[in-house]
Amino acid sequence: GVEATAEEVLTSAVVAAAYVARRFPRGRVLIVGAPPLRVALEARGLSVVDAPPADAVVVGRDVDFTYAKLHAACRAIWDGAAFLATNLDRRMPVAGGFVPGTGSLVKAVAWATASRPLVMGKPSVWAGRAAVASLGVPPREVAVVGDQLLQDIRMGKLAGTSTVLVLTGSSTREDVERAPARLRPDAVLADVGHLTEWLAK
Amino acid sequence: GVEATAEEVLTSAVVAAAYVARRFPRGRVLIVGAPPLRVALEARGLSVVDAPPADAVVVGRDVDFTYAKLHAACRAIWDGAAFLATNLDRRMPVAGGFVPGTGSLVKAVAWATASRPLVMGKPSVWAGRAAVASLGVPPREVAVVGDQLLQDIRMGKLAGTSTVLVLTGSSTREDVERAPARLRPDAVLADVGHLTEWLAK
Repeated sequence: GVEATAEEVLTSAVVAAAYVARRFPRGRVLIVGAPPLRVALEARGLSVVDAPPADAVVVGRDVDFTYAKLHAACRAIWDGAAFLATNLDRRMPVAGGFVPGTGSLVKAVAWATASRPLVMGKPSVWAGRAAVASLGVPPREVAVVGDQLLQDIRMGKLAGTSTVLVLTGSSTREDVERAPARLRPDAVLADVGHLTEWLAK
Repeated sequence: GVEATAEEVLTSAVVAAAYVARRFPRGRVLIVGAPPLRVALEARGLSVVDAPPADAVVVGRDVDFTYAKLHAACRAIWDGAAFLATNLDRRMPVAGGFVPGTGSLVKAVAWATASRPLVMGKPSVWAGRAAVASLGVPPREVAVVGDQLLQDIRMGKLAGTSTVLVLTGSSTREDVERAPARLRPDAVLADVGHLTEWLAK
């Protein structure tokens, strides 16, 4: 475990809020999503609305998704709103099985509107840039540490940071050897316990 | 206008019911859909269920779509149920604008389950075969008449029937000239009024 306060955790909802606030200061945002997404948007001075008109639509995890919400999101996008998604997850593990992921809701909106969302979560370049911006230092002084080549390492590469793969997750040393340059981390460590040692070098 | 009784109109719900009944006689079918879909399935001796287990999932138009229905459909497919869709429409015109089409709901299920549906509506080969089968004559003695190359004419070609394009809809004579052989109709008529004359030849 890594100790962190709520302010130190950067979620895709927070990244989405930062992106929308920069592009549409004090704008109206229609959401398909749960309370944390609403909170993140309102914290940036944005107005969360349930019906068009809206400057942007953000689709996130929403277990209360309905056809009416789908329709509202599509109307806003048909009328010109920007289209953002927190992630494209296919499904999420829960006790006893899986539930449909946020990506399902995103794909429903994308199909009806014949449009593609800006995806805010890993490995999106927005997520990496927002993480770097929140630290207030140049990308080259930041290292993204993660256990997945396709999400974590790719995000760091896109944002121009150093990248460290730890082998306690889903990617292996063999995956690194087979990976193209855009996915190859600067360092491969057995676990996060070796980070201090690596940073001291 | 063409006069027809309800029994003479072949909907994608009816095609789906015929397909499922042949593959899973007296099977259990989980639906995302409206009453006409339920009626069509029950008329074929199938049991319509709201929760898994199910032999097949049929996704159709459903303005009461919810995350719970999405989840039920996905669970059935994750557990091995066949996956059918009545159509892949992106959106439907209504008074004052559009509503999301059935394809949106289909894509939500397809994304979460990482699977592709058998599409029962035009231009699906199932739709064409079912239409021919319902007439009880060989495909070559049937003509599909329609105003869209990509839906109507393509379906007839797939099912092995004659095909007639009428120029009162969305496809033009120029579309026919540019079309590949698999989309080229056997006849092009100004309107359905010219059908009798064509049939007499």
